[in-house]
Amino acid sequence: MEFFQCVPLNEARDLIAGRLDGITAGDESVCLPDALGRTAAADIISQEDLPPFSRSTVDGFAVRSADSFGANESAPSLFAIAGEVVMGAPSVQELLPGQAVAIPTGGMLPAGADAVVMLEYVEQPDANTLLALKMVAPGENVVTRGEDIQAGSVIVKEGQKITPQYVGVLAACGCTRVLVRKKVKVAIISTGDELVDIQESPKFGQIRDVNSYALEALMSAAGCVVKRLGIVRDSYEEFFTILSEATAKFELVIISGGSSVGARDYTVKAIEALGAPGILIHGIAIKPGKPTIFGMVDKVPVFGLPGHPVAAMTVCEQLVKLAVRKLLGQKQPDGRFLVPACLSRNVASTPGRDDFINVRLWKRQGEYVADPVLGKSGLINLMAQADGMLHIPADKSGLYEGETAEVLLLKEEK
Amino acid sequence: MEFFQCVPLNEARDLIAGRLDGITAGDESVCLPDALGRTAAADIISQEDLPPFSRSTVDGFAVRSADSFGANESAPSLFAIAGEVVMGAPSVQELLPGQAVAIPTGGMLPAGADAVVMLEYVEQPDANTLLALKMVAPGENVVTRGEDIQAGSVIVKEGQKITPQYVGVLAACGCTRVLVRKKVKVAIISTGDELVDIQESPKFGQIRDVNSYALEALMSAAGCVVKRLGIVRDSYEEFFTILSEATAKFELVIISGGSSVGARDYTVKAIEALGAPGILIHGIAIKPGKPTIFGMVDKVPVFGLPGHPVAAMTVCEQLVKLAVRKLLGQKQPDGRFLVPACLSRNVASTPGRDDFINVRLWKRQGEYVADPVLGKSGLINLMAQADGMLHIPADKSGLYEGETAEVLLLKEEK
Repeated sequence: MEFFQCVPLNEARDLIAGRLDGITAGDESVCLPDALGRTAAADIISQEDLPPFSRSTVDGFAVRSADSFGANESAPSLFAIAGEVVMGAPSVQELLPGQAVAIPTGGMLPAGADAVVMLEYVEQPDANTLLALKMVAPGENVVTRGEDIQAGSVIVKEGQKITPQYVGVLAACGCTRVLVRKKVKVAIISTGDELVDIQESPKFGQIRDVNSYALEALMSAAGCVVKRLGIVRDSYEEFFTILSEATAKFELVIISGGSSVGARDYTVKAIEALGAPGILIHGIAIKPGKPTIFGMVDKVPVFGLPGHPVAAMTVCEQLVKLAVRKLLGQKQPDGRFLVPACLSRNVASTPGRDDFINVRLWKRQGEYVADPVLGKSGLINLMAQADGMLHIPADKSGLYEGETAEVLLLKEEK
Repeated sequence: MEFFQCVPLNEARDLIAGRLDGITAGDESVCLPDALGRTAAADIISQEDLPPFSRSTVDGFAVRSADSFGANESAPSLFAIAGEVVMGAPSVQELLPGQAVAIPTGGMLPAGADAVVMLEYVEQPDANTLLALKMVAPGENVVTRGEDIQAGSVIVKEGQKITPQYVGVLAACGCTRVLVRKKVKVAIISTGDELVDIQESPKFGQIRDVNSYALEALMSAAGCVVKRLGIVRDSYEEFFTILSEATAKFELVIISGGSSVGARDYTVKAIEALGAPGILIHGIAIKPGKPTIFGMVDKVPVFGLPGHPVAAMTVCEQLVKLAVRKLLGQKQPDGRFLVPACLSRNVASTPGRDDFINVRLWKRQGEYVADPVLGKSGLINLMAQADGMLHIPADKSGLYEGETAEVLLLKEEK
């Protein structure tokens, strides 16, 4: 029944990434807090040095380090206390040789000073006199102007996803607005005569449309704006009309169930009819997820995913999210972190095919152990209980107990 | 200058978790798509079997498995074709012995049938006759009613964070509304005479208020509703008033910079003045982040975080997020997945203190190698470039090159 040629997963990834090269969602400027989780649309350059002035990293006394040379507990260096640095105020007074100025953590180093003696290592015989019991090296206990970030340097690279840490860097440099990629607009079309919306009570022979909701959740979590276009039943004309509208209004289209025998035929026909380049992949050497379709209508990628929820979600994780990262212009769209885990039992596989199996993870002596979730493959409840998807590469005929493989986490926490 | 007793990190975690036991944000009912990323407020029980009827997992012919007994290519079993199952329609006809019915993937198994022979293993000499070339076992190529989820079983446990996979399970069971924990409302108060808002141009001696924005981003990413209450300068009365309002209106309060010498004094004084239980921790054996304060005003946890952004974010990751997970009623608030990584160089540490160092990760033969990010500790730009925070436990005096340690990921992808 399957007259298509399966493409290896790696080739499918390369083909999708290659076809989407240079196609990116547009840009928009957002205020800093809203830049969280978005992707920078251009290199962001600091206009300022950070810190903007040399600062003390401790509570103590600012000095010229040369004046402390050789100081120790039995032979302290002597300083004249020449005032104190007030937080938030400029240090206008230049420090002269032999002078010391009290300075709090974060205070601005006075001109002339190049180091700070910590409070722990000083004695004050009287209000005007300081004894340093320890020598300090030039720059000790000081962050110099521009040491964190220099004016003119790139603080966030184009294509970088903006984490909370980058929000901190942008705040530090006064970048109150950030140019980011627009969110990718994704349409989901469900096909299948047996499907009813989740609001309805399925009659005998019918089941609820799981995929529209599960795929919407996956794509929302990946930062997309998602619209469910509903269920199309077995009419080519209706399907063609909806797909035509979707490819005109959205930047990525997912057809769920479009790889079942009947639906596959009109998915292929409609993608081809809507224009070049048309169908590019018809079948991928992956389990679950073999009957996957990938095509493009002009610049809009269209995925036909298997009707089975676990297969659909697996392909979505492995390929659709890759397409989204390409559309966002991320530089390393394949760079997700995977967790190595040691298998707790033998798992069979077929060489020439990439297998993904649901596993639970637990820890043994600092390393993760992966327990394959037992039960018939493809039960959605088992997938939800899994912590991650373990990858058996195409060049293996299975993995033995004790072998290590890579797991894509499906959860952040147990 | 630091007259406080440092508490080990593990004790601090246990104390915070213990104090927040039984204190949870309220509950609310949301529609299914909005339940993504939220935490279930009660066990969710399926009212239905999934699948609601026994289904074929392949395209083929439904049969009584006993009728195929012993079938092989040289001695096929003979069946009378008695019709076909239509997708989405009930199978009303009971299958009699010796009969077979054509069935598509996902089709409803007719009464009497208990297995499906795949299309690949049949021949049809004429329209009414079927030869099965392979025997099938009872249940083969069939998912039976309730095999994925049984009516009455718990599909999402109380305290479980709802992943896209759980959205799929809930959709499958027709759970269109979900009872979840309300988002935790977090207030952030910044203190420090040297701080100006990021919109302003700092004068000499002043710096921008990085922490309000960085901590807002961290807590938003953790699913909280965050409000920045602005910068309080060195006035105890103003600080007391704002903290009093914050603990009345929010469920968790973060004071940033509240552990600097002056601010620490009035942070402690204000928390104690606002009522029991007051200050519970004053100093934690962690680097960075030692001068951390934790207290509670009635049922509201209050954190005083170091003014230094890297220290503030480290403590936020290690302790404040733990408090949020407790307030959400998550069952394993300490269960975050950490990635084991092999150190590329020796790193010194002090026994009795938990150290966290920023690292970049790269892959060598399937395992991660952690390169400590070089440069003065505490530069925010270095933290942003890091992939994760490597943990040196308190019982170590450092780690050697080649040793493995755990890394908390700060990014999902390179």
